[in-house]
Formats: sequence, structure tokens, C-alpha cells
Amino acid sequence: MQYTLTVEPLNRSIVVAPEQSLLEALQGAGISIAADCGGEGLCHHCGVLLVEGEVAPRDPSRWVERQENGHRWILACQARLAGDATIELSPQSLAGDMAALGRITGYRRAGEDTTHCSWPLARRMALQLMPPSAEDNVADWQRLEKRILDTCPDAPPLTAGLEVLRALPQVLRASRCDVMATIADRGYVREVIGVAPSASRPQHTPGLAVDVGTSTVVVQVVDLDSGHLMGQAAGTNAQKAYGADVISRIIWAEQHPDGPARMQDLIIRQISELAHRACELSGCEPRQVVAASLAGNTTMATFAIGGYPQPIRREPHIPFARDVPALRARDLGMNLHPLAPVFLAPAVSGFVGGDVSAGVLATGMADAEELGLLVDVGTNGEIVLGNRDWLICCSCSAGPAFEGVDIAAGIHAVPGAIDRIEFDRSSGVFDWQTIGNLTPIGLCGTGLLEALAAMFRGGLLDRQGHLDPESPLVRDGYDEPEVVIVPKARSGTRDDLVLRESEIENLLRSKAAVYAGIASLLRALQLQPDDIQRLYIAGSFGNRLRVEEAVTIGLLPDVPRERISFAGNTSLAGAYQALTSREARERLAEIGRQMTYLELSTEPGFMDEFMAALFLPHTDLARFPSQRGPGPSSS
Amino acid sequence: MQYTLTVEPLNRSIVVAPEQSLLEALQGAGISIAADCGGEGLCHHCGVLLVEGEVAPRDPSRWVERQENGHRWILACQARLAGDATIELSPQSLAGDMAALGRITGYRRAGEDTTHCSWPLARRMALQLMPPSAEDNVADWQRLEKRILDTCPDAPPLTAGLEVLRALPQVLRASRCDVMATIADRGYVREVIGVAPSASRPQHTPGLAVDVGTSTVVVQVVDLDSGHLMGQAAGTNAQKAYGADVISRIIWAEQHPDGPARMQDLIIRQISELAHRACELSGCEPRQVVAASLAGNTTMATFAIGGYPQPIRREPHIPFARDVPALRARDLGMNLHPLAPVFLAPAVSGFVGGDVSAGVLATGMADAEELGLLVDVGTNGEIVLGNRDWLICCSCSAGPAFEGVDIAAGIHAVPGAIDRIEFDRSSGVFDWQTIGNLTPIGLCGTGLLEALAAMFRGGLLDRQGHLDPESPLVRDGYDEPEVVIVPKARSGTRDDLVLRESEIENLLRSKAAVYAGIASLLRALQLQPDDIQRLYIAGSFGNRLRVEEAVTIGLLPDVPRERISFAGNTSLAGAYQALTSREARERLAEIGRQMTYLELSTEPGFMDEFMAALFLPHTDLARFPSQRGPGPSSS
Repeated sequence: MQYTLTVEPLNRSIVVAPEQSLLEALQGAGISIAADCGGEGLCHHCGVLLVEGEVAPRDPSRWVERQENGHRWILACQARLAGDATIELSPQSLAGDMAALGRITGYRRAGEDTTHCSWPLARRMALQLMPPSAEDNVADWQRLEKRILDTCPDAPPLTAGLEVLRALPQVLRASRCDVMATIADRGYVREVIGVAPSASRPQHTPGLAVDVGTSTVVVQVVDLDSGHLMGQAAGTNAQKAYGADVISRIIWAEQHPDGPARMQDLIIRQISELAHRACELSGCEPRQVVAASLAGNTTMATFAIGGYPQPIRREPHIPFARDVPALRARDLGMNLHPLAPVFLAPAVSGFVGGDVSAGVLATGMADAEELGLLVDVGTNGEIVLGNRDWLICCSCSAGPAFEGVDIAAGIHAVPGAIDRIEFDRSSGVFDWQTIGNLTPIGLCGTGLLEALAAMFRGGLLDRQGHLDPESPLVRDGYDEPEVVIVPKARSGTRDDLVLRESEIENLLRSKAAVYAGIASLLRALQLQPDDIQRLYIAGSFGNRLRVEEAVTIGLLPDVPRERISFAGNTSLAGAYQALTSREARERLAEIGRQMTYLELSTEPGFMDEFMAALFLPHTDLARFPSQRGPGPSSS
Repeated sequence: MQYTLTVEPLNRSIVVAPEQSLLEALQGAGISIAADCGGEGLCHHCGVLLVEGEVAPRDPSRWVERQENGHRWILACQARLAGDATIELSPQSLAGDMAALGRITGYRRAGEDTTHCSWPLARRMALQLMPPSAEDNVADWQRLEKRILDTCPDAPPLTAGLEVLRALPQVLRASRCDVMATIADRGYVREVIGVAPSASRPQHTPGLAVDVGTSTVVVQVVDLDSGHLMGQAAGTNAQKAYGADVISRIIWAEQHPDGPARMQDLIIRQISELAHRACELSGCEPRQVVAASLAGNTTMATFAIGGYPQPIRREPHIPFARDVPALRARDLGMNLHPLAPVFLAPAVSGFVGGDVSAGVLATGMADAEELGLLVDVGTNGEIVLGNRDWLICCSCSAGPAFEGVDIAAGIHAVPGAIDRIEFDRSSGVFDWQTIGNLTPIGLCGTGLLEALAAMFRGGLLDRQGHLDPESPLVRDGYDEPEVVIVPKARSGTRDDLVLRESEIENLLRSKAAVYAGIASLLRALQLQPDDIQRLYIAGSFGNRLRVEEAVTIGLLPDVPRERISFAGNTSLAGAYQALTSREARERLAEIGRQMTYLELSTEPGFMDEFMAALFLPHTDLARFPSQRGPGPSSS
């Protein structure tokens, strides 16, 4: 006996034997989903939504389930089928760099709510034209144009380039006027970028949503007909060899005559390679990809077009463009459909780029009445405050400590990284969890922040960030105190995993920069933290960091916890929305125009806010009423 | 003592000695104008307008002058300066294929009547932007965009491609925001196609007006800032090696796999070469040419884009496009500014193309209240009837007889070609003039029609086109009668120049096809010849053919002679207007939409009209009241 398992959003059906786990069935069908613990029910990364049908546990002792979006959330590795069923994979359960993918919000299913005239960045239309006759001797291009305009009369005017005009007469006559047109949205106009007999119509209309991060690049292949995710791939930004942060890459590019060209080549080649991998997973060819939507910070966008980055780091930090007219894949050197439109999310300033505007779009905060705050934490912290009436933003240099850079025990969010940690004051022992439940080999960004919170709560760390010299876990390091988080006996590195005071200071500077940015925006608008009704955390912390710990260390203001949510990779989510919906692109352009940039370096009071935020949680405890109890007072 | 001669429309000043002829002075300054007789005052091709100043004759016996457009029209070869002066060269007096150039009508001087916001196909704008600051931190592209939009708020929206977006930040900073933008009109949008420091602004903004004729290609270089002609060049269409007429070239292209590509290569290469020559004459580089406006018949336009020509010759004769979205020079392979817009005048059908719509524009008949008729005579005769309210057109296959093809004594309009001819009935002698007053070597198209008229008037030819066997000039040829126009003693070919009866029959068929087309259009609208208030003759006859002779043989209907004018190369004139004015391009698009095509091959009555028109001047003499006297009646 065999059952049929329908896998969304891939829209695939696979045959499953009753004794197989869903994970085994998916892997057997070539659908690669994350299973860091090897299918032992430990890492919980293979969680899927059971949309329809029944499943049974393989090992009841390991069974985990919860309710999510009205469906049962189960572990694919622990479930087997009890009949035909439909599951839905979360984007982050698909293969890729898990830390970068985070949680995708705001997916709009084009197949569900798209009218016939909605406009993804490019679309295909099957059109049966009337064949020309002596009475109806309209020219070929006008015949096609009129048919498309009749279908969508309110859309922008149509144009076409040489390739299409040249091919059209033969295609019309070879197909008996039954054609498929590929139409790109170029903003003020639509361009027919391809025309072929309808019979040759491929199964899907693939487009790319791309998050061009300074550290990580993520590419999703999306079916533009349905809005469904077809596959994705992610990788470390190849420009990392030229600097971990944007400033060092800008300087490198400035100092080398071919710097901008080299940077462009690196990023375009990488996007193309990831697109190739994601297309393989999706069962399509890169040349079939008819559109690409990119969100990245201003430096990444500038490098993507081969631009001259110097103005970004010089005051007044001007980007080459806010809204960028849609470019062509061929001009950029991307190996997609040569005329595929490449959309870039708008930049507000040199340090608030398309990743942030896309994030604002994805959270929906720009459409809400309530006041929202978006905090995107990476090497730079970008912060946006506002609602549907106004938006103000700033950028603060958080430094790379949150990414584990310059911290001996800091590592990326890879299997074996500690991402959850507690300290039991009475027993004086750390208790931790690692990604994949492996032996610990370091602390990822989330783990580092959790460690700060745990030590502060447990009295190991005072408000100024000094380690308690009386604790048996604290010892003298080379020339400063350090705390042993994992003793070598339990470490996967065969060495103690420690945190030094200077590293803790680095982390405090990072969190202080983010907090001071938030406080400066609030102050500029004469608002209080409690005025924030929704607080979205985006970026590399993904959804691993716990809200309580983030407030405990004073990274986030002390607002009621239920107002805080982890929004995941909002840059990618915004790029997806822009890819699949013209309304989203128009909204994104408005967001770019609406956002006022506050330059913190010249903002009076920012430095005071920063200095005050170097404490745990803050110099002014009145700002953290919920934190008054637990920590020791050093004053 | 020396005088200054200002030469318009070239906008050049040259120094002239009092003893020099104007022709010598122009030649010495590298301005090549036609002087087929070598400056002997015979060919009259070096005629110029004396706009200002005084001249004196060199040889009073050869002095010729007349009034034209309120100025004195004089021969450059016969005039010397009596002081500083300004002359204006007619387009046809500049170098090139004289027969093809004809007379340019409707020149709109952009420098005179252009507001700051008028839009040639591309233009340059010098713009001083405000440098960015912390208070004005608008992105580079939006800064430029806003400045251009502020200058011309009513124009279409702006866009830009990769090259400009990439170059803009450096150009702004290197020029202290004092930049020159090159902006192309692409119909629904304008595109910034270049940006450079203002200091690098070239003297002119060259654009091309091109008449892509089946026989001859003419290229003019026009300064888009002023609308002035800078130079021109013409040559025989290189596709002639693949057939004299469009049908044979279409068949060749159909029968060879690389046919369309070969045809495109030939025509694009030729336009590029002519552009190169015309640019040399104009003192500019082809890469500086920022726009090109092409008018050609549907087959020439199809070949120019490398298109598939078969539908043109198959019913219902559908062109690939009516209005063609503006293409890019780079895509077409033209060696101009790579992003220069290339505009194609709209085609109405497979046999009424952009040359005709451009001609309608140039004559102004589509804006007139009075009824106009445009007759463009070439291998095909295209005829348009109408006014500002309606336009109807048709095409009739006149055949190549008017171009001297398949006629032993027929030649192109080259020096030595008879282009005027009389027959003195009493003396029984032909009297002729040749181009350049050289010994005759053949008859050009005009000469052939003049010969028909002269022989018919002189009784040598009866109404059916039979030669008078009694005349001493008529003899038996190989198997048919023939008339000796020029005896070998006076011929430059050392042979008699003769016309055979079968050749005369060919010519009658050609003229009958044109007349029958005119008559069919009139009949379709239930109009009479006398309803025609303006009759424009365009095409290869230029202004050499005399109106009286054209009516005498029944090529044109018998309307009062003052209503008939020779409009010259209206295709080129329309291409020029489209190049220099957005209003003209919009008007041209409307003309293309307005024109109704009447298919003669299925039109009842066309064949009867054709048969009736094979007589001289026509079977129905009532239609030619002015012709009732002179000719002999054979009925």
C-alpha cells in the first residue's frame, strides 16, 4: 500500500510507503529540507505544517506537535502517513543557509488572490489572436498589443524591443496566432520581452527573489503564475574576501581601478550560481527566469550595478539612486532571460538601503495605524520607526560582534553552535543547547546575547559588564578576566569556550549602538518606548533569540513582550513581494519616498544615549522597569 | 580685400576673395555642392538663395536669376561677392544623389520656433544641479530626474539604463554637478542615455534623417539643437544586387536561411557608411549621433530590423508593425551612440509604408481642410487621398519602367541623361536637354515621360501607343517598330538612342497603373478629379518632370495646373520632421492610424480603370478636357 503526499508550496505529489518517515520520503523525492540532527527528532528544523490528512508517530517518545496557522505543526522525521496527506514546507525548512533565511513573512499567494490583471515583475500570457485578413489588416505588433491592452486596459502602455518585433511575424504564422507573450513590468511601461507559440509554454514562470546581504546571499525561485516557492539556495557573500563589512569593501573598491567591476563580477556571478542551484532544485533552467527582484543594502546594490561606491561612505552618504529604473539581466551580466527586468528595492541613504525598505514593506508597518519599530540587526543596525502616516529611519554601526567576529568563541549559526544558554545561580553551572544538539563548538550571535543575559541575571556580570571575580567560572586570561562557558571536557573544540571582558565590552557596544539608535528616533519624535505598539526584529538573529533575553541586556526597549516579534529575513520577504506584485512595488517606492533619514553622527544626544546604553540593561533603570529585580546593582 | 560669406543651413562662415566664384569659394572650404556642368552655368544645379548682401555676375551672358521664397535665387558658379553676404544652400544642392534628394519641403527650424521643452528624438540639456548636502540628501538619480522634470514638467516620465546609473555619481562629483544630459524620447518614456560634465559638451547635437529607398538611400545629418542641416550623403541601395524591386528581394530573403540577416546587414552597413560620410562633411563623429529617424517602405523597414518579409507579399500584406517602438542603435548594429533611439515612420500595409506616411506628414495634407492627393511614383506607385478628416491610400505596381529598367535607352538621372525633350512637328526633329548639358547617353525617367508627351503631341504616337509608320524617325526594329530619339551621330553612346513600341507599352502600363490607382481612390469616395485641390508629386521624378507633360500622357488627372506641385523627397522630409519634433512624431503616428488602405487587387473596377488608362491620355477623353485639341485621334 502506498499513499500520496502533496508537498506545498512546491506543488508536487510524491508516493510514500506507510513505513517511511515524511523526511525520508521528501529526501527520496529530491526535496532537500533541513534535518541537522539527522532525523532524530532533536533539532526541530524539519517541522512542516500538516494541511490535510492524518499522520502517525514513529517513536511516540519523540513526538512533538503544536498548532500553527490553524494547522498541526509536526516533525517530518517523526511522522509517517496514515493515508493521503498534504503538507506545507516553511521556506526555512527548505535547504539553504538557515540563519540567513529566517522566517518569511507576508507571503501573498498570487494563485489565490491575483486577478487576471495583477502584475508580477514579469508574467506570461497565453493569447489567441484573430488571424489577419483583408478586412482586419492590423499589423502584427498592433494586433498583439491590442489583445494585451484589451485584457488589462488599466495597465501601463506596452512596448517591445528588436528581438520580439523581429520574431513576431513568424511566431504568429507558425502558431496560427495562438501565442504566449512574456511581459515585463518596467514601471512606466510594460515590455513584451518574448513571444512564442503557446504550445511551447513551460510549466512554470520562474522569477527570482534575492536578498543580497553583506554576509549572506539568498536566492529563491518563485513561480510567478502562482506565487509559490519552487526552490532556494544561499551562500556566503563572495565579496567577504575583500572585507567583512561594507566600509572595508568600499575602501578596497576605491583603491583599485577595477574595484567596482570586480565587486560587480563577484556578486553577479554569485547570484547567478545560486540561481542555477535553486533552479536545479525547482526543475527549471536559469534562462527561463523572466524576472529578478533584489533587496540589499546600498553598498550591495551599488556593487550589483558595478557602481562607484565612494559617495556612500562620504557625508552626506548619497546613494546612486533611490528608486532604480528596472534594469535588464543581460546588461547586468546575469545569465537569466536576457531581457528579464531586474528590480532593486529603493535605498533611502547610503546606510539605509533596499534591504530596509523591503523590510518595512514585508512587516506591513507602513500600512498600519499603530506605531511600529523595525530593528534589523547585522553589522549595521538599521532602525525604522513609524506607521502609515510617517516613517523615520537611522543606521547605527553595531559592529560585527553579533556575528561572532573578533570573538574567539564566536561562530556562525552552524550545527554545534550554542544558540540557547541559561546560568543556574545556585549550582553555578551553564546549561546550553546547540544547533543540531551536537557537542558545542562555539557561540553564534544569538548564543552570545543569550550568554550576556544569562550571566547578568545570574550575577556573573555586573551592570558595567565586569565579570564577578569571585565566581569559580571566572579566571584571569592573558591580560584580562574571562569566563569559561564550556569547559574543554565538554567542548567539541578540545578547548575551553570562553568569553573575555573585552569581548563582552564589544558586545555591549553593539547592543548600545542599536539601543541608542532606537532611543534617538523616539526622542526625535518626542515619543516614549511604550508608544511602540509593534516591534519587529529582523536580520541574522532569525527567530532563535528570545525576546526576554533581548530586553534583559537592553538591546531592545522594555516594552510588553507580546508586542515584540521576530520577523526573520524581511529583506528577502520584501523582495518576494516586489517580485510577485505591482502593488507591492508601488508601495515599496512610496515607502522609499516616505522614509526620512536621521543622520545619527550629527544628531545631538546620540552619543549620550550610546554611553548610557553601555550598561546592563541601561544607566537609567527607570527605562527598564521589568528588569529592576534580577540583576545585581553595582552602583 | 576679402569678404565673409555665411553659409546656411551649415551655419559656417568662410572668407572669399572678390574674384572667386561662390562655387569655387564653397569648394575651397570643403563644402561640396552639385555642379554637374563643371561651373559653366549650364546645369543649374548649384543654385543658391542669396539671403543677404550683394553679388555680381562673372559672365553676364550666362547670368540666371529668379525670385524664390522672397530671396534671389542665383547660380553659385556665376556669382562673385560684392561685399559680405549670406547664402542658403538648398538640401539638394548639397552633395549626394541628386535625383533621390529632390526638394525638401516643410523644414521646421528648431532654432526658430522651438520652446525649451520641445522634443527632438533626442536632445542634450545642460543642467546645473544643487550639490547634495545633509539637508538635501536626495539620491543622485532622483536629483537629476527632478531637475529634468522641473524643466519640462509636461513631458513623459524619465528612466535610465545601467550605463547612466553607473556613471552618474562620478560625473556629478567630477563636474560639481554641472552636467550635460542626453535624453532620448522613447514615446511613453524619456530615457537619459548619457551624462557627462557640461564642460565636455560638443558644439552640435547630431541626429540622422534617413530615407531608405528601394533604389537609393539618403542620409542627412541634422543639428538637433537648431534643426539645421549639417551634411548629407546618398548612395544606391546595396540590396540592389539581390533584386531591383522589393518583391524580388523578399523572395531572395525567403529562399535563403540567412536571407533576412543578410538583408539587414546590407542596409544597416550602408546607412552606417553614409552616416559616416555625412558626419565627415558635418565635422562630427558617428558616435556623437544621438538619434536616427528612418522612413522607408514596409519591405525596407522589415529588412532594417532583420525581419521576416514573407507576410508583406502574401495577402493580406501585413507589416510587422504600424507604429514601431523606438529601437536602440546598438541593437540594430548601427555604429552611432549605442543607446540612440532609432525611429521608424509607421507602415499602413505591406505596400504603403513609412515613406508614404512620412510623405503625408511632410506635405501637410493631413492638417489641411482642402482635399489633397499625394502621388509617390517609384517602382510602386503609392497614392494617398484625403485631408485633415480622413485619409485613404493604395499602392499600385507601376513597374520599373519609370526608372529606365528594361528600356534599352533608359538610364538613371545622371549627367548626360535627357531629362527634357520636345518634338517639332513641322521640322520633324527632337530637341532635348541633358543633365549637365552633356552629349546624351540615354533617357532618365523624366526624359522617358517627356518623350511620350512630345511624341503624342507631335503626332508620332497615337492614342494606343503605336508609332506613326509614316514618320522618317520611325523604322522597323528587330521585330517591332522603333523611333530614333537621338541619332548615333549626336549620341554619346556611338549608337542610336531609340524607343521601341514594346518599351512604350511598358511605360503606358506604368502610367496607367498610377492613374488607375488615383481613379480608384476617387471612385471609392465618389469624388471627381476636380475635387482635388492640391496634388503633390513625390519621388524619383523630383522637380524635373513638367506638370503639363504629366497630364498630357494621362499620368495625372487633368486638374488645373496650379494645383499640382512637385514635393520632392517627401519621405526624407518627413523623416527630418519626425527627427526634430515630438509633435511631428505624434502627428505621424496619428496619420498611420488614420490612413485606410484600399487593396486594389480585390477592388472592383480597378482593372477596368487600368485598361482604360492604357490610352493616351485615356480612353475617356471627357476626363482630359484640356487635352482634346493636340493629339491625333486614332479612333
